[in-house]
Amino acid sequence: MTVIGLGAMGKALAAAFLAAGHPTTVWNRSAGKADSLVADGAIQAATITEAVTASPIVVVCLLDYPVLHEILEPVGDTLAGRALVNLTNGTPDQARETAGWARGRGADYLDGGIMAVPAMIGRPEARVLYSGSRPVFDQYEGTLNRLGTARYVGADHGLASLYDLALLSAMYGQFAGASHALALVRTEKADLTEFASSLLAPWLTATTVALPLLAEQNDTGTQAGEESASPPDMQAVAIANIVTASNAQNVDKALLSHLFVPLRDLIGRPAHDRDLAGMVDLIKKPQE
Amino acid sequence: MTVIGLGAMGKALAAAFLAAGHPTTVWNRSAGKADSLVADGAIQAATITEAVTASPIVVVCLLDYPVLHEILEPVGDTLAGRALVNLTNGTPDQARETAGWARGRGADYLDGGIMAVPAMIGRPEARVLYSGSRPVFDQYEGTLNRLGTARYVGADHGLASLYDLALLSAMYGQFAGASHALALVRTEKADLTEFASSLLAPWLTATTVALPLLAEQNDTGTQAGEESASPPDMQAVAIANIVTASNAQNVDKALLSHLFVPLRDLIGRPAHDRDLAGMVDLIKKPQE
Repeated sequence: MTVIGLGAMGKALAAAFLAAGHPTTVWNRSAGKADSLVADGAIQAATITEAVTASPIVVVCLLDYPVLHEILEPVGDTLAGRALVNLTNGTPDQARETAGWARGRGADYLDGGIMAVPAMIGRPEARVLYSGSRPVFDQYEGTLNRLGTARYVGADHGLASLYDLALLSAMYGQFAGASHALALVRTEKADLTEFASSLLAPWLTATTVALPLLAEQNDTGTQAGEESASPPDMQAVAIANIVTASNAQNVDKALLSHLFVPLRDLIGRPAHDRDLAGMVDLIKKPQE
Repeated sequence: MTVIGLGAMGKALAAAFLAAGHPTTVWNRSAGKADSLVADGAIQAATITEAVTASPIVVVCLLDYPVLHEILEPVGDTLAGRALVNLTNGTPDQARETAGWARGRGADYLDGGIMAVPAMIGRPEARVLYSGSRPVFDQYEGTLNRLGTARYVGADHGLASLYDLALLSAMYGQFAGASHALALVRTEKADLTEFASSLLAPWLTATTVALPLLAEQNDTGTQAGEESASPPDMQAVAIANIVTASNAQNVDKALLSHLFVPLRDLIGRPAHDRDLAGMVDLIKKPQE
């Protein structure tokens, strides 16, 4: 097992392999990052060539794809016959390009998206999505499961990245909405931590049950029943109230003018009485 | 028990009281809404005066405050000595004004925010926040718990509304992010329902654990540790990748240009290395 890139995430990956008893070789462009791993039994490669040639499977977790190509291109030929598992965050197109590049060097390529922060790595709650080479996934599934629950999402090398970015965008939307909520509550000098623990987090967990329904409405073109969603006129009132209250409490900006107002207009439009399912269309380009 | 307003939510409230064995009088401005409730034992008042005078506690759930005032003002004096529990969605200022109006008529006033869709009413997972008259809350807590878990949040009549709108804004952010995720995944002709059930909903449940931490960082001005959050440079890369991939997949609009791009810039700024906690400041007005 080789791990290239020892940022917070790369270190967590190497530590999870070591904790599971896998001999692990590590390498980082700048020095000093491997010390704690070496203390735990990792072998620190002196050069990138030594790192790549140490193992049949090379796991890469770097800042971005430009850094990845800078590091791997000089040693591309040493990848022949090995499995390159790339957990660097990137776009579907970057994953597909890199798969083509790896194929040109005789390497099998599996692309992955890590749905976890470093502290979660090594626990089953961490999920890692993989796409690309099914043989590599099947051969190393047991090992990859040591990082977090491994899930294969398809042969198209770009899919893990697409799903990863989709989930991250959902998280940013959730955090942005939560930040707006905290900004509103903060105006009354409330204890934000208590509000977040006892109301906000349980509420946002409860509202996730609506998401498969929202997806199903988009899959099938059906609408939610009266009982299982607030009717559009109620939603338009609620959003107008959020806007009014936010202005009154001197909290506004990003979400209000750019998300909530268009959303209220969307919900108010008669053609969109499919309630929140119409939000997906709001986000799709109109000409599509 | 009197319930005024028999939209989907008002009907669910009356049905929950009936299911718990409480004699319930109902009234709605337009006819025909009470039929199923009457079949279940509700008494349909012929007039709004008859409805108000039937019970010591009058629960109101209408479309908005203008409708509420239109209906209640003509019968304001009949409210004397009764408890008015208002579950109409509104702003903190509307709740405070209506509390003053009710006080002028000799009524006790409790304002509430329903954190549930109608189908959830009557189950403990439904939460209803209340603020205002503590005596009314204490006297009727057991009855109000039949609608959903009742929680008193403060004597200021506006607080239940503020918390309600804050939680709703968080939900809209979550749904907007989820809609962006679905729009991205839909470009690959994936099964959205399967994606939402097996990946999106569990993921957004997992990410709620970050919210109390985010709130605590705002309460205390501290930062997240390296292990428990992605570092700002990784987040800036991830957001840039969401933007790039969304453009490549022909998905863009609301969240991209108005939320993700400012967020990337925020995270990229050296002064904001408190990572996502800085998002709350992005949403607060700068002059504050």
